Amino acid sequence: MATFQLNSFLAAQQARVEALLNERVARLGPSGTPPQLAEAMRYSLLAGGKRLRPVLCLAFADLVARGSAVSAVAGDAACALEYVHTYSLVHDDLPAMDNDDYRRGRLTNHKVYGESMAILAGDALLTEAFTLVASGPESMRAALCRELAVASGAAGMVGGQVLDTAEDRPSALDYLIRMHRMKTGALIRAACRMGVLASGGDADALARADTYGDAVGLAFQIADDVLDVTATAAELGKPAGADAAAGRFTFPAVVGLEASRKLADQKVAEAIAAVRPLEGEDGPLAALARYTVERKS
Amino acid sequence: MATFQLNSFLAAQQARVEALLNERVARLGPSGTPPQLAEAMRYSLLAGGKRLRPVLCLAFADLVARGSAVSAVAGDAACALEYVHTYSLVHDDLPAMDNDDYRRGRLTNHKVYGESMAILAGDALLTEAFTLVASGPESMRAALCRELAVASGAAGMVGGQVLDTAEDRPSALDYLIRMHRMKTGALIRAACRMGVLASGGDADALARADTYGDAVGLAFQIADDVLDVTATAAELGKPAGADAAAGRFTFPAVVGLEASRKLADQKVAEAIAAVRPLEGEDGPLAALARYTVERKS
Repeated sequence: MATFQLNSFLAAQQARVEALLNERVARLGPSGTPPQLAEAMRYSLLAGGKRLRPVLCLAFADLVARGSAVSAVAGDAACALEYVHTYSLVHDDLPAMDNDDYRRGRLTNHKVYGESMAILAGDALLTEAFTLVASGPESMRAALCRELAVASGAAGMVGGQVLDTAEDRPSALDYLIRMHRMKTGALIRAACRMGVLASGGDADALARADTYGDAVGLAFQIADDVLDVTATAAELGKPAGADAAAGRFTFPAVVGLEASRKLADQKVAEAIAAVRPLEGEDGPLAALARYTVERKS
Repeated sequence: MATFQLNSFLAAQQARVEALLNERVARLGPSGTPPQLAEAMRYSLLAGGKRLRPVLCLAFADLVARGSAVSAVAGDAACALEYVHTYSLVHDDLPAMDNDDYRRGRLTNHKVYGESMAILAGDALLTEAFTLVASGPESMRAALCRELAVASGAAGMVGGQVLDTAEDRPSALDYLIRMHRMKTGALIRAACRMGVLASGGDADALARADTYGDAVGLAFQIADDVLDVTATAAELGKPAGADAAAGRFTFPAVVGLEASRKLADQKVAEAIAAVRPLEGEDGPLAALARYTVERKS
């Protein structure tokens, strides 16, 4: 039985991420960023959320550092991942995209600052992510930039978004998996890999982070689709069943609820097997993998 | 008297940039980029233009390489600058921003591919710029990422765009200069600095590239404002006098036509003085600096 205390671990790690983000956001003013732009960036960046990507990045960085304090590079990498994730949400919410008025119970960026500022705040968050990872003398910084750029770009997150909105989208499982691997999976996988790179991990640790991140990213997305069918609106903090009502392209819609759950469980098992040689039984990464499918929202 | 043959130099360099861009764009398909995204990126990237940023970058890289062929890093840096410049045009043209239907005589990206794809194609171009500069073993790649990110981001190009559209914008010369230093100057300055870095130039060459880029960037913008007042529509390829008609915040509007010309000439002289110890009399960089104010469009 798993006895790892995930709740207290998550709370501590999320507080750590908030502190790291606050430190870096505070530097925007002195850097010469116009105050109104800094405010729009801060509004979405500090709006809470699970902080899954930075938490995964730091978990791998800690693991590879084996008890030593991780370097500032790991903190920069963790924050850069959240900057990229946040920019993607700000742009996705735009009227020309999903046209959402609320996110996490607050008005979306363009509803508060206007559409033009929301486009620019998203652009700035994406760009500042690269400033964060590229600033410093450490030799792995270019590799971190590359990981982040490839995962976020045309063959990663942005490409996945295009596949998701394509008019002639095939409704086949392999297309669905490929789309999610790019749209959300690539950045989650990069989070795990960047944690290993930031702590100078070896090729074996990097390969394990890769397998773990790929599996957890897919499990997370399948669980999201399953939750939309099974959770209550109170648990989700948004209307339940919205995907089905909108006829969205989801795992339950393509292979059914049971096969979706089975696929997610299989991915979690793969993820846990990949990191066992690194963290042993009952470590934080196994708990985080289980959490992706056991969460209620 | 300057006898450097700028026209043939520019034509050759622009052809060189087109070839470098085509090579890199061809790699989008095999990388896993969805074809419809690759097409939207290519449409704006290969739409012509002066290619000023890559030409400046390569000119500095060539100069520092002293006759040896420059490395692939310089080509990557030059293309990355054009990717970032192109993304900024695609986003600037959006309905929520300048709402332009035409650019360089062709329909703007969102008029052809829709607003949602134009946002994503811009995002992808920005991100791919970092993939280009960060991919490779060379030690200066992280420094190049940093130059590009800082120049393009919240305290650079995006920040300048925010200052330009601010509602409470002061109509003072120092604000106008600060705005242009960020909005267009930062990326032009980065182009020059990145050329030096890509060829492994020393601190003196980097400082000279910095002074030159800053002065040329400002001269270029002043000349743009002056051309709007003095050129004919046929020369500009767009209506002349549009700035004045729209009551835009320009150098002639703030300090008058003659003082604007004088300031631009002074900046060109500063730029030429900065690079004379590097290229001697009558080199390409001096000719490019003169071109920024002597061009007819």
